[in-house]
Amino acid sequence: MSDTATRKRGRGTGGGAARRAERTAVRIEAARYIERNIPNLEMLDDAALELIEANAETVLEEIGVVFSENPAALDRWREAGADVQGDRVRIPKGLARKLCSTAPAQFTQHARNPERSVEIGGRNLVFAPVYGPPFVRDRQLGRRYATIEDFRSFVKLAYMSKWMHHSGGTVCEPTDIPVNKRHFDMLMAHMTLSDKPFMGSVTEPSRAADSVEMCEILFGKEFVAENTVMTSLININSPLTFDATMMGALEVYAQANQACIVSPFIVGGAMAPVTVAGTLTQVLAEVMAGVAYSQLCRKGAPVIAGAFVTSIDMNSGAPTFGTPEAALITYGAGQLVRRLGLPYRSAGSFTGSKLPDAQSAYETSNSLNMGLLSGVNFMLHAAGWLEGGLVASLEKFVTDADQLGVLHTLAGGVDMSETGQAMDALREVGPGGHFLGCAHTQANFKTAFWRSQVLDYKPFETWADEGGRDTAALGEARVEKLLAEYQPPDLDPGIADGLEDYVARRKAEMPDAFN
Amino acid sequence: MSDTATRKRGRGTGGGAARRAERTAVRIEAARYIERNIPNLEMLDDAALELIEANAETVLEEIGVVFSENPAALDRWREAGADVQGDRVRIPKGLARKLCSTAPAQFTQHARNPERSVEIGGRNLVFAPVYGPPFVRDRQLGRRYATIEDFRSFVKLAYMSKWMHHSGGTVCEPTDIPVNKRHFDMLMAHMTLSDKPFMGSVTEPSRAADSVEMCEILFGKEFVAENTVMTSLININSPLTFDATMMGALEVYAQANQACIVSPFIVGGAMAPVTVAGTLTQVLAEVMAGVAYSQLCRKGAPVIAGAFVTSIDMNSGAPTFGTPEAALITYGAGQLVRRLGLPYRSAGSFTGSKLPDAQSAYETSNSLNMGLLSGVNFMLHAAGWLEGGLVASLEKFVTDADQLGVLHTLAGGVDMSETGQAMDALREVGPGGHFLGCAHTQANFKTAFWRSQVLDYKPFETWADEGGRDTAALGEARVEKLLAEYQPPDLDPGIADGLEDYVARRKAEMPDAFN
Repeated sequence: MSDTATRKRGRGTGGGAARRAERTAVRIEAARYIERNIPNLEMLDDAALELIEANAETVLEEIGVVFSENPAALDRWREAGADVQGDRVRIPKGLARKLCSTAPAQFTQHARNPERSVEIGGRNLVFAPVYGPPFVRDRQLGRRYATIEDFRSFVKLAYMSKWMHHSGGTVCEPTDIPVNKRHFDMLMAHMTLSDKPFMGSVTEPSRAADSVEMCEILFGKEFVAENTVMTSLININSPLTFDATMMGALEVYAQANQACIVSPFIVGGAMAPVTVAGTLTQVLAEVMAGVAYSQLCRKGAPVIAGAFVTSIDMNSGAPTFGTPEAALITYGAGQLVRRLGLPYRSAGSFTGSKLPDAQSAYETSNSLNMGLLSGVNFMLHAAGWLEGGLVASLEKFVTDADQLGVLHTLAGGVDMSETGQAMDALREVGPGGHFLGCAHTQANFKTAFWRSQVLDYKPFETWADEGGRDTAALGEARVEKLLAEYQPPDLDPGIADGLEDYVARRKAEMPDAFN
Repeated sequence: MSDTATRKRGRGTGGGAARRAERTAVRIEAARYIERNIPNLEMLDDAALELIEANAETVLEEIGVVFSENPAALDRWREAGADVQGDRVRIPKGLARKLCSTAPAQFTQHARNPERSVEIGGRNLVFAPVYGPPFVRDRQLGRRYATIEDFRSFVKLAYMSKWMHHSGGTVCEPTDIPVNKRHFDMLMAHMTLSDKPFMGSVTEPSRAADSVEMCEILFGKEFVAENTVMTSLININSPLTFDATMMGALEVYAQANQACIVSPFIVGGAMAPVTVAGTLTQVLAEVMAGVAYSQLCRKGAPVIAGAFVTSIDMNSGAPTFGTPEAALITYGAGQLVRRLGLPYRSAGSFTGSKLPDAQSAYETSNSLNMGLLSGVNFMLHAAGWLEGGLVASLEKFVTDADQLGVLHTLAGGVDMSETGQAMDALREVGPGGHFLGCAHTQANFKTAFWRSQVLDYKPFETWADEGGRDTAALGEARVEKLLAEYQPPDLDPGIADGLEDYVARRKAEMPDAFN
């Protein structure tokens, strides 16, 4: 794989074959992460935020949280000054917030290609792919269990998507690989098929440790000791419960100075109260307890405060997406997290739809827009999510990823330079004139407007002649084009061999397990 | 028609038939217009706004605007202190803004059912249907020229859509009716098939006068003299040109104290500069000149400052929708209009897609969300727009109208009452528990979450068993259901007869014209 990659890519490797490859190489455009030049929407006023903060402190002190089957965690909390009874940890008011204060407000997640490294926090926004679906769907084969080949396709698509900054983690579950060995193949895909930053395994502490070791091969042991090279997803078992598996992975990552997203996973009405303010209170309490715990494991460990929030359809019990309640919570949680001085993770290409149809796009756009405007710093699930997260959609991945370009341009704000003001154009054209030919337009039109790479802008007749394709069909064509053009990024053959050897050795040490 | 309406509706008409009708009547839920309880997103800072305002004054003074073929308008401007040369009107700095100051910041548009009257301006938001398409599309018959029967279907759907506050105007062009007689049939539909507020004709000053006269029959002459009962769309011929037809209609409406939306219609790059700030400058100059002119026609006449803005696809020349440039302009124009102290019209269910597919929903949601957050007071085209405004879609109308409910709930903000805080629920459930059964959930779940009336939340298997319908198919079913259940609102038979007599007489006075 790595040899092939080197031959195909030919970047900086010298030699005739490399030079020939250079001339024919597919150009990968990759936008830098978003640095917002626009304000956030501050949905709640200070009085509301202070009330929620006070309530969250009450929740932590009076109700407390559970760290289940984790005596070491209970010891850490006891030592920090919490009241520990059984596995219940009651945290005195002010303590959790104080512990959170040692987490950095912003950190760099390094990619093996330094140009793809991302700054997480501040006014920045980083997009990462869908995470977790056991199924995939495409137009050709429909809905089916995901395989490692599907996984690789998503990694390739993310690599080739201009507006996608991150390779993600479990872009889909490779169900054809034994459960206890999946993380090796997933990490191999991220490490070799892409040069964007990625996430590590969290399904067992030992798999987190494997992730760190593979990063040490990829980046070098010293580099990993001093830098953050993974940002991994640690879900809280809402309400108010931190299970041993997730906390075990967090412990591994925090101690290795690797970043965790500490994130309540809430279906409102089931795992949290049915109200926005009540849910925000619970989210804040959970996030503060989880982030505080990361700092008990290693003071200064990088962390992202997350909020995955959806509502329940009270008729069917199904989770719903792109809803106004989720939007209000996303805005409010952003404000609360900023007051904690932490990077914020929320929003995504959420939808409950079974198909990449209008419903899926309404719901996705609602969520993407609120994600930008609520100050999200790390948006997991930014493309490809379908059917409540059960399905990763290839076609939706590319159309969602295209829409991320809308957010990029919107986040850039308004150019108020003389060119932006365009007074010369207004003077040249005058009443009743046409701007297409004027000097200002000629000088600026190429970069003036964001342009979709997949949506259809053609006149009706042309569009009809070309088969009258809907968005899913346009997405399918784009998936095929990108996968056909895909070429892996260059990778040192020694490193590639090292990764392969490590994976082969570790896989040989364990029997296959399928659950 | 009116007799039937009375018999079927039976609201407050007494008698046994009426009482029987009452029991079986279809209940029409109609939400009040939105009163925002959330902040607007203030995209531009004061320095940027002041620069654009200064530039707009420069445009008006140095470049000026054209009032073509309209000697009376030129006289009015000359008298007001403008420099008039030929049909070019150069407006000294400060004059247009000063003239705008007599327009009301907020006004009531009365509906014949007082419960449906709307307050336009302030923190309010009123939704109105798509306006202007010559074609309609539905799943059964595809794309075709619109007829008066299609027009009536849209009026019925708007009447039955809970989140749609307004019946609109030219919801589609009834191309089967002679051009010079269409306005009669369109107004009849709005007046008899709905009891929501509506728009008048603007395609000729005489048709505006007909609209006023029909309103005098519907509301009473005295009521119309003292109240605003129509809000009609006056487009500016950008750049900087005010044609005699549109201005003639504006003159009729302003003098009758009826409201006009004074609105640049801009495809950026063609009718305005390719930059956001340049377009905002032109929009502000045009809006100020147009609103100022309305006040020269009648000081205090109600008016809405509009901005219809899209970009051009520089490859194909096609207009594009749901783009970030349009969003930035919509946000900025909202700020500029608020600083003028006027109600603001912008955004809508815009899309360039040919089908009600994912593209149409991405683009529509982008625009709807920015419409809410940019402080729009009157959103024309809030549902049903397709294919760049060439097509009105029945299925998209109902799915868009459903999404307007998302904006309603979002605009309501966060309930910070004790019930909203839900501390009792958090205490009752505790770590690891479940909120579905708790007392707080039981007391509040019915109203806790916005719920779509058309989108699919069912489990995959149920959805598949029911035919695996996409959003367009779900929309089709909803259209059929609503049209089947439709019953016209009650109307005094004398008024209905009066309208019919007026229309019959006026139609008989003129030969058919088809262009």
